[in-house]
Amino acid sequence: MSENELVGRLVAAGWKGSRDVALGPGDDAAVLRGGLVASTDMTVEGVHFRFDWVSAREVGFRAAAAALSDMAAMGARPVALLVSMALPGDPAVGVELQRGVRQAGDRVGVAVVGGDASRSPGPVVLDVAVLGRAAQVVLRSGAAPGHDLWVSGVLGGAAAAVAAWSAGARPPPAARERFVAPPNRVPLGRALAGEGLARSMIDLSDGLLADAHRIAAASGARVVVREEAVPVDPAVFDAKVPGASASGQASDGHLNLALTGGEDYELMFTSATGAADRVRALARELSVPVTRVGTVEPGAGVFLESGGERREVTGKIGHDHFATP
Amino acid sequence: MSENELVGRLVAAGWKGSRDVALGPGDDAAVLRGGLVASTDMTVEGVHFRFDWVSAREVGFRAAAAALSDMAAMGARPVALLVSMALPGDPAVGVELQRGVRQAGDRVGVAVVGGDASRSPGPVVLDVAVLGRAAQVVLRSGAAPGHDLWVSGVLGGAAAAVAAWSAGARPPPAARERFVAPPNRVPLGRALAGEGLARSMIDLSDGLLADAHRIAAASGARVVVREEAVPVDPAVFDAKVPGASASGQASDGHLNLALTGGEDYELMFTSATGAADRVRALARELSVPVTRVGTVEPGAGVFLESGGERREVTGKIGHDHFATP
Repeated sequence: MSENELVGRLVAAGWKGSRDVALGPGDDAAVLRGGLVASTDMTVEGVHFRFDWVSAREVGFRAAAAALSDMAAMGARPVALLVSMALPGDPAVGVELQRGVRQAGDRVGVAVVGGDASRSPGPVVLDVAVLGRAAQVVLRSGAAPGHDLWVSGVLGGAAAAVAAWSAGARPPPAARERFVAPPNRVPLGRALAGEGLARSMIDLSDGLLADAHRIAAASGARVVVREEAVPVDPAVFDAKVPGASASGQASDGHLNLALTGGEDYELMFTSATGAADRVRALARELSVPVTRVGTVEPGAGVFLESGGERREVTGKIGHDHFATP
Repeated sequence: MSENELVGRLVAAGWKGSRDVALGPGDDAAVLRGGLVASTDMTVEGVHFRFDWVSAREVGFRAAAAALSDMAAMGARPVALLVSMALPGDPAVGVELQRGVRQAGDRVGVAVVGGDASRSPGPVVLDVAVLGRAAQVVLRSGAAPGHDLWVSGVLGGAAAAVAAWSAGARPPPAARERFVAPPNRVPLGRALAGEGLARSMIDLSDGLLADAHRIAAASGARVVVREEAVPVDPAVFDAKVPGASASGQASDGHLNLALTGGEDYELMFTSATGAADRVRALARELSVPVTRVGTVEPGAGVFLESGGERREVTGKIGHDHFATP
């Protein structure tokens, strides 16, 4: 069973509609009537991180930043965090995890209002639920033919760090930093939502192409990504990656990290024709780089365009924590 | 480090006040401004349950019922669940967990609006966050001298099941049922809060005496429990428990399960002098047994009264998932 398949079965088993809920499962977060936005994100030692890669405080920071990224993708303002942890050894590790969570919360002005802690015979597990508020949320389903496709920041850095660690190497400092400290895109997400500029939005947790598939499927449209436009993280070029050529030179390996590497936690969104200048102006105001990487067309699926040629990319790409053996 | 100590350190590390939050950590749930109530509850295989005791669906039901119990203790109406799970083996186990969660949600009319699932090299971990609404919440801190102390239902059944399993025996069916299907006290909690009858309230997750300490400490008052009044679950008498005498006869062992056994998920609350008849009438209306088990006095700590004699009981009692080796 793939992660997508499992999630589909979990949604079917758990959801049945509710008069208290404005938006049920399937987007970056759920929305209650009244505008409360809620999401949760679980991190497992040995799957999402290893303690010989990162410290407990970095794990907490990263987990909370990932959870907060879902609020950014909805255009919501985070208001509170709930943190649960399973701890195999010294409970003091839990305090360090919590300190990391708090640091990520401090970036956006939210605190930990509750949680749970349990002893465990297994790996450290950290689950961060985040609550937010939004007058108007932006969904994955709002992409329409004619829209421009954008991403914030640069891509592939976090995946480059994981690739280096997995190969037994030390990742370049900039790539490591991208892994342990995902960016805070809450101001950008809120501004794009508030000004009505983002018509559909998602955070890049599973890789640009996998997340483009989610936009395409939710919107009933085709997403076309221009390969040459994808902003590859400079940190990628310094990392030893499979299929990568000499340092400083973009290669299939480098590009692949930017297209399919998970956990960049940048935003991907679409905007209406003619809104490009306003998108750029808003991003400049917030000092966040944004790049137009493609377009939305009638149809279905995700296509990658390079040198005037197009090929369809399947949904079986990107980060799948269940597919990994 | 004890569980209480760890929780204190986690709260200190994670909390700092927030203009969005009406009630921070320390009670059964947090409360956002506007009346949204939020809590989370983590269940770990090998700590809270074993799969040779219970099925995945029962685990899900129990985890969600435990989380919903926090809403009951606040006097809140649950509106949504978020479910995260770490799954070591067949992901289909996750679907069964979710079905159990959904069944518990159905009892109170809430659905699963979101969640997360991850592969894990360790035990099954299930984290259930619950969101609710309340016009007026009931806190642990509202107990005052002169109050009556009440509990709902009967106590010790879930602990009797665990004691039997831990001794390699099969628990009596009624005790097993108490473990796998905690009662739904949401209607009682909401009614007690709505009519202003419960002045302080908590759910019994760690045992009557341990949770009485929480009421006493939060309220700055002394809680006195009359041993003879404690409603021992009849299922306890059928279970083989350490220190228990012949079946059908209350003993120290039986009483101990009712006083210190965790996870009954009944409500404990205090009411003002003279409100006893109204409490009983309301409980009768909802067909929930309630028992007056003690009183609140000036002072501090928890005292157990038996045969006209009193002894103080320390805070180091009840269920501590971190103290267990």
